[in-house]
Amino acid sequence: MEVLVPFSTDHPKSRLSAVLTPDERAAFALATLRDVLDAVAAAGGEPRVLATGPVDADLPCPVTVDERPLTDAVNAALDARLESEANGRVAVVMADLALATPDALRRLFATGREADVAIAPGRGGGTNALVVGYPAFRVDYHGASYLDHRRIADEVGASVRVVDSHRLATDADEPADLAELLIHADADADGEGPRAARWLREAGFALDTTDGRVGVERE
Amino acid sequence: MEVLVPFSTDHPKSRLSAVLTPDERAAFALATLRDVLDAVAAAGGEPRVLATGPVDADLPCPVTVDERPLTDAVNAALDARLESEANGRVAVVMADLALATPDALRRLFATGREADVAIAPGRGGGTNALVVGYPAFRVDYHGASYLDHRRIADEVGASVRVVDSHRLATDADEPADLAELLIHADADADGEGPRAARWLREAGFALDTTDGRVGVERE
Repeated sequence: MEVLVPFSTDHPKSRLSAVLTPDERAAFALATLRDVLDAVAAAGGEPRVLATGPVDADLPCPVTVDERPLTDAVNAALDARLESEANGRVAVVMADLALATPDALRRLFATGREADVAIAPGRGGGTNALVVGYPAFRVDYHGASYLDHRRIADEVGASVRVVDSHRLATDADEPADLAELLIHADADADGEGPRAARWLREAGFALDTTDGRVGVERE
Repeated sequence: MEVLVPFSTDHPKSRLSAVLTPDERAAFALATLRDVLDAVAAAGGEPRVLATGPVDADLPCPVTVDERPLTDAVNAALDARLESEANGRVAVVMADLALATPDALRRLFATGREADVAIAPGRGGGTNALVVGYPAFRVDYHGASYLDHRRIADEVGASVRVVDSHRLATDADEPADLAELLIHADADADGEGPRAARWLREAGFALDTTDGRVGVERE
């Protein structure tokens, strides 16, 4: 299954600006993207980066540049793929799913084969990953896109299944998400662990459990 | 499988005090508890409330009162059950898992049969649900209990499997969690939907999607 991974090359991860400089945010976003691409490939997907501009890095998969807003770029890519191929399926997996594992993505892909549309909601009502096998379905990433995507699927008569995954629901978007990343990269690390968590640790971040809730601190 | 559902009868849900009065918090906590008990039973579990004091409500299952702190009360309950029964399994499911569905809990119980300990981590490093089938395992709910429980399992030689579920990772703990509840109760509502979401809507809460991120507003 082809897996589009939308990636913004301008001002990525601005909600992390309280804890990371612009250059750090770009490096962290790229480390996360590489983790996602590896996990997609390990789950049997064929990743393709859908970038808003040229990506200054040697990535392990093709890159398509489309300067349009996310919704337009993804809809154009879905059009191009679903109309040419009967029973085809295309996945769209966000580039900041730092906790995505091959297991979680296999579950997404498998669910996508059982319905016209499979959605992995993000915390806060976003759509962190989906699989589309229904040409009339269109994405709309503005606002609470999870609810919008369910409504759109209803309107065009597409069946929907939801993928219940904490890993796919968590994007590396805000400082609290960095704690989530360190918690689960630490616990499940196999050898070196994912690049994004390694990057955070090398940048001096560590879990802070002093006040009962878990956060991050930086040396 | 017996499923202990710890429930605090004193000052429940204090982190919701910015949006709910003490009486409202108690009513909301009780609505959530009832939803959890229903979901546990629908998933084939036998729920038992483990309360810190008498519960002033007619609940659909037995209630054990144990005034000790959560960790001590749960360990005592595990002791009493696991030592008397070979290959027994006991689950512990928090009472504030407002998004728990029978499907998510079935996955927890099934995972618990495949390992000595199954853990569903909460967002922020807590332990929202677990299944224990290993008498030497002890809980410790202080701090980042998910990491502690993995360490404790390693120390006593218990195998661990992790349940990757957004629904089980989400507890109704802070105002942002209320949005999560309304998002997923709305989308998956079957008829009347869960009591906790209904309670929130009757109390005037609604999703607020005006600023791009999803929050709650109250009339």
